[in-house]
Amino acid sequence: MSEAAASVLAVLGRRGWKLGVAESLTGGALCADLVAVPGASTVLLGGVVAYATPVKASVLGVDADLLAAHGPVHPQVALQMADGVRRVVGVDGQPADVGVSTTGIAGPDSPDGQPVGTVHIGIVTPEASRTTAFRFTGERGSIRAQTVAAALDELLAMLSE
Amino acid sequence: MSEAAASVLAVLGRRGWKLGVAESLTGGALCADLVAVPGASTVLLGGVVAYATPVKASVLGVDADLLAAHGPVHPQVALQMADGVRRVVGVDGQPADVGVSTTGIAGPDSPDGQPVGTVHIGIVTPEASRTTAFRFTGERGSIRAQTVAAALDELLAMLSE
Repeated sequence: MSEAAASVLAVLGRRGWKLGVAESLTGGALCADLVAVPGASTVLLGGVVAYATPVKASVLGVDADLLAAHGPVHPQVALQMADGVRRVVGVDGQPADVGVSTTGIAGPDSPDGQPVGTVHIGIVTPEASRTTAFRFTGERGSIRAQTVAAALDELLAMLSE
Repeated sequence: MSEAAASVLAVLGRRGWKLGVAESLTGGALCADLVAVPGASTVLLGGVVAYATPVKASVLGVDADLLAAHGPVHPQVALQMADGVRRVVGVDGQPADVGVSTTGIAGPDSPDGQPVGTVHIGIVTPEASRTTAFRFTGERGSIRAQTVAAALDELLAMLSE
């Protein structure tokens, strides 16, 4: 259980905000880090692992033209994933308050021609939305772990502003 | 990267079958274990973490009456989650060939009155469907890890029959 995940859930819980998680390269690891915190269910509604590119459009509602033009590793895709998952995991027609997303290239190959380690994190809250770009180094597992840590850090920073 | 995850993906790849993952108590850890394998994207389309009970119905299509009558920790819920995620992560109207699911109680509390460690795993393939019940012991993280391992083992066993 990560300290950052526990902090994120504590801040969200104090605000009464529910969370949804949309992941590509992290493949569920971000959501799993949050679920590892006892009591996560009071805040976390669920998540979507949109690993195949078409799933980002069909499930999360990312603009298919945007995906066709720029591929899945793009800040606007991250933003639309974070926004879209709020609706997907919404309960009783009420979207989750906060959505967080990861999209990027863990390697070893780069299907889009962008450098391995390129990552975009998207966050949407009722107050603001933001994307942040990273260029991580290391092997596949390390890039994914750095992405999970960065997503939690970004979320905590944005919620603390 | 787990050997079991690599084996599952290798067998599915040989058959040309695509995979979707639906998780409750494992919270994305099963999907993340599969994504850790290089080349996972040729087989794994994506997954849904249906952590809140209503999300099991709204996203995965689990029968709401079944959830109301028995709660989310039930073999039929596991089966419907595994079947439902095939449609959710389908591409071009073509469902994933194989769905696997986890639902259970990781603890420390048991909202449904069932013993902590009660887990159901559901698997649906084009040839068969199956649910398996487990009663794991240990703390929250251990129960989740045992569930991930059991899901991969069950999947591999079923694909090898």
